Amino acid sequence: MKAWRLDSVPGELKRVEVDIPQPNPGTVIVETKAVGLCHTDVGYMEGKIPFAKPLPIILGHEAAGVVSAIGEGVENVAVGDAVAAALIIADAPGATRDGAYADFFEVTAAQLVHLPAGFDWGQAAAATDAGVTAYTGVAVHGAVKAGDRVGIVGLGGLGMTGARIAKVLGATVFGVEPRQSSWEVAKEQGVDEVYADVSELEGKDLDVIIDFAGFGTTTAGALRAVKYAGTVVLVGLGKTETEFTSFDLVSRSITLKGSTPDGNPENLRAVLKMIADGDLKIRATEIGFEEIPDGLGRLQRGEADGRLYATI
Amino acid sequence: MKAWRLDSVPGELKRVEVDIPQPNPGTVIVETKAVGLCHTDVGYMEGKIPFAKPLPIILGHEAAGVVSAIGEGVENVAVGDAVAAALIIADAPGATRDGAYADFFEVTAAQLVHLPAGFDWGQAAAATDAGVTAYTGVAVHGAVKAGDRVGIVGLGGLGMTGARIAKVLGATVFGVEPRQSSWEVAKEQGVDEVYADVSELEGKDLDVIIDFAGFGTTTAGALRAVKYAGTVVLVGLGKTETEFTSFDLVSRSITLKGSTPDGNPENLRAVLKMIADGDLKIRATEIGFEEIPDGLGRLQRGEADGRLYATI
Repeated sequence: MKAWRLDSVPGELKRVEVDIPQPNPGTVIVETKAVGLCHTDVGYMEGKIPFAKPLPIILGHEAAGVVSAIGEGVENVAVGDAVAAALIIADAPGATRDGAYADFFEVTAAQLVHLPAGFDWGQAAAATDAGVTAYTGVAVHGAVKAGDRVGIVGLGGLGMTGARIAKVLGATVFGVEPRQSSWEVAKEQGVDEVYADVSELEGKDLDVIIDFAGFGTTTAGALRAVKYAGTVVLVGLGKTETEFTSFDLVSRSITLKGSTPDGNPENLRAVLKMIADGDLKIRATEIGFEEIPDGLGRLQRGEADGRLYATI
Repeated sequence: MKAWRLDSVPGELKRVEVDIPQPNPGTVIVETKAVGLCHTDVGYMEGKIPFAKPLPIILGHEAAGVVSAIGEGVENVAVGDAVAAALIIADAPGATRDGAYADFFEVTAAQLVHLPAGFDWGQAAAATDAGVTAYTGVAVHGAVKAGDRVGIVGLGGLGMTGARIAKVLGATVFGVEPRQSSWEVAKEQGVDEVYADVSELEGKDLDVIIDFAGFGTTTAGALRAVKYAGTVVLVGLGKTETEFTSFDLVSRSITLKGSTPDGNPENLRAVLKMIADGDLKIRATEIGFEEIPDGLGRLQRGEADGRLYATI
């Protein structure tokens, strides 16, 4: 089968032909239909993010496809099922084992979630990482529920998805985005009010603010703006250091939570349901298998607008 | 009655003779037996902490004494009861109304907690603020429970009380204090291991770290040292700004909580019980009523060792 493989770091992906993987006890082979491109792949290639698996490795960790073979003891899926793979950091195709920049990939069966009939493959792939990352920030660590007043800082791809998820959960949503070009899209996504600066969220009695930008100043501003005993969730890593005024946190019993995507399949299921119900559409652009290295280059240079996914 | 009153800010306390307060519906008059001196008073006098009440105001918010009169509708206490007053920020003697640097003070009845017979007045006064502040950081925001592995950063007065409370709650406690002169006391208080630097807590699988120092670097170090998905509680404000590496928080789903003392009477009751059971003794030094301004000067200059309280 065809695959894009990383043989050394720092390094580029290499186009290779390898054997189709065979299932092991508890694992499944999935025929890749769509696979999302991720900034994390760029980090791997640059040698900035370490691997748990010895190189070489086939990358690609945001995957959806059709089950083509099952290993011993697998009962939750059958050959022919349409599935997406929940991202478990400790056991992830494209990170701790070979991934989905290939015709087929092997994955632990328990991580697979069934897709409704006719589900869009690109949306399924985008749901596994972009969708679940936004969902984890908003619904898991932010614990957003109906009636909450929620701030979303940064209305790029991830933040816009987060804002939409907060709306679907029944919150009143206050967006912050300096680029006014995003404001109209935000309104279309149901964001109730949009501001240019996080300081404008002060006094709005917000239960929780999710910072998808992570520019330090955005987090510090969110800690000042959120209500007494409120929560700020940090998802974005726009800057490596965050500095805030300690008194803002201590004198008002504010909670600041870092949010790693939680790969519990329940979270992926929740995102897929929002998409299936027509409530959520993740902004994603299709490319071809041969364009994967070029697409990763676009991510590296910050030129990608929304998610990229390759169909295979 | 005699009292120490603040008439303007910045300013000094003025020794005055005023009328004994009379109870109102729902309030109680308490004859002051002991009142703690607090850094917050220094902040008030320097004009750095704003008042909710127009000046002049009699300061003193850490108080215990004997009920001398009750207002209409008061049923939870009776004349002659020994009580301590839980600190509710929105309605606090010595902050939002006249306080306990006086022979008598008025307080909302619901904030009063009964003291066991023969309870030490100085410990009762110290419990209301120093005790509850440490308890809130450890037991409320830190949610420390039996079997937890807990880091306590800063073993000054408040941190040592926090360390002891964590021990009483059944935790294994790892203290951090650069001044080795405190190490022996820490061991006597049951602290299991003591280190000079927060970085030495790394790899110790700590569920929660409570930072009573708040020197910025201590908080950043705690965020690095606590276990995956662990919690860091910030109580101390040794520096005004905190800077941390965002990736440490986000990549490991760490929670950072600011901890304002929670004046729920249940918290004061819990601290008083630890003291009554002989499990906790807050380090506190007695002074006389006339020495209150001098004692506040010692706090201001950082010369006080442990809490100071005045008996009246």
